[in-house]
Amino acid sequence: MCRWIAYSGTPVALSRVLFQPQHSLIDQSLHSRLGVETTNGDGFGVGWYTPDTASPATLREIGPAWNDRNLRDVAHHVRSNLFFAHIRASTGTAVQQTNCHPFRSGRWLWMHNGAINGYRELRRDLALAVDPALYPEIEGSTDSEVMFFLALTFGLAEDPPGAVARMAGLVESTGQAHGVPHPLQMTVAVTDGERVWAFRYSTEGRSRSLYYSTKVSALRALHPDAALLRDISDETRLVVSEPLGDLSGAWNEVPEGSYGVVQPGEHILREFQPVPPTVAAPG
Amino acid sequence: MCRWIAYSGTPVALSRVLFQPQHSLIDQSLHSRLGVETTNGDGFGVGWYTPDTASPATLREIGPAWNDRNLRDVAHHVRSNLFFAHIRASTGTAVQQTNCHPFRSGRWLWMHNGAINGYRELRRDLALAVDPALYPEIEGSTDSEVMFFLALTFGLAEDPPGAVARMAGLVESTGQAHGVPHPLQMTVAVTDGERVWAFRYSTEGRSRSLYYSTKVSALRALHPDAALLRDISDETRLVVSEPLGDLSGAWNEVPEGSYGVVQPGEHILREFQPVPPTVAAPG
Amino acid sequence: MCRWIAYSGTPVALSRVLFQPQHSLIDQSLHSRLGVETTNGDGFGVGWYTPDTASPATLREIGPAWNDRNLRDVAHHVRSNLFFAHIRASTGTAVQQTNCHPFRSGRWLWMHNGAINGYRELRRDLALAVDPALYPEIEGSTDSEVMFFLALTFGLAEDPPGAVARMAGLVESTGQAHGVPHPLQMTVAVTDGERVWAFRYSTEGRSRSLYYSTKVSALRALHPDAALLRDISDETRLVVSEPLGDLSGAWNEVPEGSYGVVQPGEHILREFQPVPPTVAAPG
Amino acid sequence: MCRWIAYSGTPVALSRVLFQPQHSLIDQSLHSRLGVETTNGDGFGVGWYTPDTASPATLREIGPAWNDRNLRDVAHHVRSNLFFAHIRASTGTAVQQTNCHPFRSGRWLWMHNGAINGYRELRRDLALAVDPALYPEIEGSTDSEVMFFLALTFGLAEDPPGAVARMAGLVESTGQAHGVPHPLQMTVAVTDGERVWAFRYSTEGRSRSLYYSTKVSALRALHPDAALLRDISDETRLVVSEPLGDLSGAWNEVPEGSYGVVQPGEHILREFQPVPPTVAAPG
Repeated sequence: MCRWIAYSGTPVALSRVLFQPQHSLIDQSLHSRLGVETTNGDGFGVGWYTPDTASPATLREIGPAWNDRNLRDVAHHVRSNLFFAHIRASTGTAVQQTNCHPFRSGRWLWMHNGAINGYRELRRDLALAVDPALYPEIEGSTDSEVMFFLALTFGLAEDPPGAVARMAGLVESTGQAHGVPHPLQMTVAVTDGERVWAFRYSTEGRSRSLYYSTKVSALRALHPDAALLRDISDETRLVVSEPLGDLSGAWNEVPEGSYGVVQPGEHILREFQPVPPTVAAPG
Repeated sequence: MCRWIAYSGTPVALSRVLFQPQHSLIDQSLHSRLGVETTNGDGFGVGWYTPDTASPATLREIGPAWNDRNLRDVAHHVRSNLFFAHIRASTGTAVQQTNCHPFRSGRWLWMHNGAINGYRELRRDLALAVDPALYPEIEGSTDSEVMFFLALTFGLAEDPPGAVARMAGLVESTGQAHGVPHPLQMTVAVTDGERVWAFRYSTEGRSRSLYYSTKVSALRALHPDAALLRDISDETRLVVSEPLGDLSGAWNEVPEGSYGVVQPGEHILREFQPVPPTVAAPG
Repeated sequence: MCRWIAYSGTPVALSRVLFQPQHSLIDQSLHSRLGVETTNGDGFGVGWYTPDTASPATLREIGPAWNDRNLRDVAHHVRSNLFFAHIRASTGTAVQQTNCHPFRSGRWLWMHNGAINGYRELRRDLALAVDPALYPEIEGSTDSEVMFFLALTFGLAEDPPGAVARMAGLVESTGQAHGVPHPLQMTVAVTDGERVWAFRYSTEGRSRSLYYSTKVSALRALHPDAALLRDISDETRLVVSEPLGDLSGAWNEVPEGSYGVVQPGEHILREFQPVPPTVAAPG
Repeated sequence: MCRWIAYSGTPVALSRVLFQPQHSLIDQSLHSRLGVETTNGDGFGVGWYTPDTASPATLREIGPAWNDRNLRDVAHHVRSNLFFAHIRASTGTAVQQTNCHPFRSGRWLWMHNGAINGYRELRRDLALAVDPALYPEIEGSTDSEVMFFLALTFGLAEDPPGAVARMAGLVESTGQAHGVPHPLQMTVAVTDGERVWAFRYSTEGRSRSLYYSTKVSALRALHPDAALLRDISDETRLVVSEPLGDLSGAWNEVPEGSYGVVQPGEHILREFQPVPPTVAAPG
């Protein structure tokens, strides 16, 4: 459906990650190996953080990434220590800028690969569960954006894993109520500009592919000649829909039903389970 | 905010109406005289009916109409007996195809000039009032599209003036409930491919401009040399946000708070009043 | 590089040919089987003729064809007896409307799959050979458009096969002068709205794929149940970059180094050879 | 026709110059006061320099600047000490990215307001005068781009004022040869990332408007409370098609037939005269 990359670490020009690798995201836009669709040409987006700005920048376009000159130039000239990039294969919703990832709210960025099964049927119930104060910010028509607003509703700012678990729980229960099989399929990345949380989950336990990069120090020992590895710090980490190349030892599958946190200090990998909504007591 | 044209009558190439007049809609996209904004460059759309197709065609683009080559070609080559055209000046919502008018559902087309005041605040309540079976069809983020879906919800297919009155009534009452002054400002055109209904209304009684063309037979007597007039039938009628030229006697203001029906046989002009929603009896 | 379709025959809605076949051009935009590139997402175009208009219409967009709503609507509502459609995979030149096929000049449409090898080097010499009166009409930056203007320069209006042969001859000799191996690779379709000429040629004798449809009467005998076949006349003919489906007996390869003419009366298939430019005698 | 801004000085977020001023370039895109056209909605571009990159970045789009979200975000997040911005009103050539200014070649950026009169007629002769080694880099169809390539041909890298004078001289003489009245109308800005040259010239001596900002130290004395003035160095300078606001004493007209150089050390203002091409001696 889609492919994405999250980068956190030493500030680099975005192009070093988005364009230069052998099987870069740009290459994946034409020839994804592990995606459900081999072509991801229904728009793209990058989001990045810069010092001294209250919220991240995004550049989102409705054309394919592979020949977009603005993306090429911006990626070559903008350096950032934390950025997201996403290429889209629409599963039916309109090809429009407001349906391109990453989505932004305040300091937060969100991107998603996967789908809510039977979304047409579930859409209204899910949108109604969004905090009324946030509802007017919904601009597009994708399941991914509503998932973001549900996570915001459920406390993303305070407890990202908990908020995402409650969002997933609501999708599951809403799907069950409508008789939709396997309601949720997702890999999600979300960040506040400091930490990155990445989730891999699906109702059926067969989630879309997701990988994280090996610790740079270990990788540098294996591949002392790799140029990029010499330029980046030990804390640098990538989470990606599919490996960016064939460097042996570089990529590790995020386990089914789990999430990771890329942050200053120790990175974390934990189990992920949806949390069903609590039933409101009858008044 | 926007400008629009509705044409019904003798089949003509769209360009005769959209491009050729002295102060055509294309000219209005750059230099509107009566609009709130002089520039209407945030997208455009045309919708037209052809024999043997179940629903009308639309061509909608996010760029300005004035230099769009596809519009020029299609308008020159497509003939229709009933078509809508709209140029957009966004009041804040995204410039995207799904926010371009006319909106379509089945055989129906809808276009709007004006705004729901305080729409960000009212949006959720209004969206919730849309028939749940129709809700998934909402693709954009404009007030205009939600007004269309509310009218569909309230029986547009059976009773267009009644459905639009109930839609307007709901907008008024929802606005009042939120303390929004002057909630509704609208000129609306809607058609099922047979008849065209055009509405002019605003809470404050100072509605956006709207005109209808004089009966062709009368006009032809006044201007025996006008080429277009010779080519079109007596029943041909235009409803427009602003006159397409300075032909004396050609344009008549649609009165404040009224609606007209362009249809086979006698055309109609009537008073329009919003109909407040009935309060559901407690069960 | 690209894929294209030329249709001539019974007036049909464009969608019957562009969208409905099993391996339609729209499907080929995502999954070409015989193209050099499997993805053709760098813009598209259709050109069609309508009665009473001096020149054909074109609709050309820079996004992929597969999710374009305007294309879908126009194709569904426009009927024509002669139309071209093209999907583009850029080989480096800009993704812009003026680089999308078909190209138009007066009553003529032109589309191309292939490339002039070393075009950057040859571009200036070829452009200089264009009739100075036509030169200002060049709007894009592709080899394909310059090939069209060269053919116009060399008498396309009077003798299409001869003009295309002289164009090809000039490309060959210019390539040789610059030391470019295998200068020309082309399948080309050109029409004046009455007849369609289709060419398959490459310097190296390994041209891009090109097929023409079997005579409808023969095909109808083979497949009495095929719906489209019942609706079209015996003279209807398609020329395509690759077959639109697996209907046995439906598609015939255009031989290497040949051209065909689809026209009222007998269709023609002939050998094609470039004609070298005559050396101007020294003055 | 168009409007543009050139900024050189203290690194600032582009948005401080492009969006924040009272009569900013973005405002001018809708409501130019001094332009030939009040609306400049046929595309836009920004070009900026960043440390450690061999050539400047450009962001160019074919839609209007006023509602472009990518421009807004990039301008807010990118800081630069030297940038160009341009909004376009097409005088007939296609609305496409390769016709948007600024144009780039290596380290150079170029932008233009005005027109070559009778360009359709002169285009071929002017294109032929471009260095054959540069000719393949021409991607668009505007006079402005060809003017840039002519200046490059005539030694822009070594002597910008001389190269621009020779370009102007060639346009003048080519126009005269074709009987075109008043061939050239231009304000041009060009930069190598270190210095900015700005030209104001027209054959008829009635050139498009052009202004440069007053020395910051003098302006700061006049307006001690202006926030932007406190944040920028004394050497900071703007050259603009029309003033960005009504700050008294801030803007000075570039005299008719002159050019200025914004550079480290003393800024320069000199007379500008086209230099006719020298006739090649017969060999």
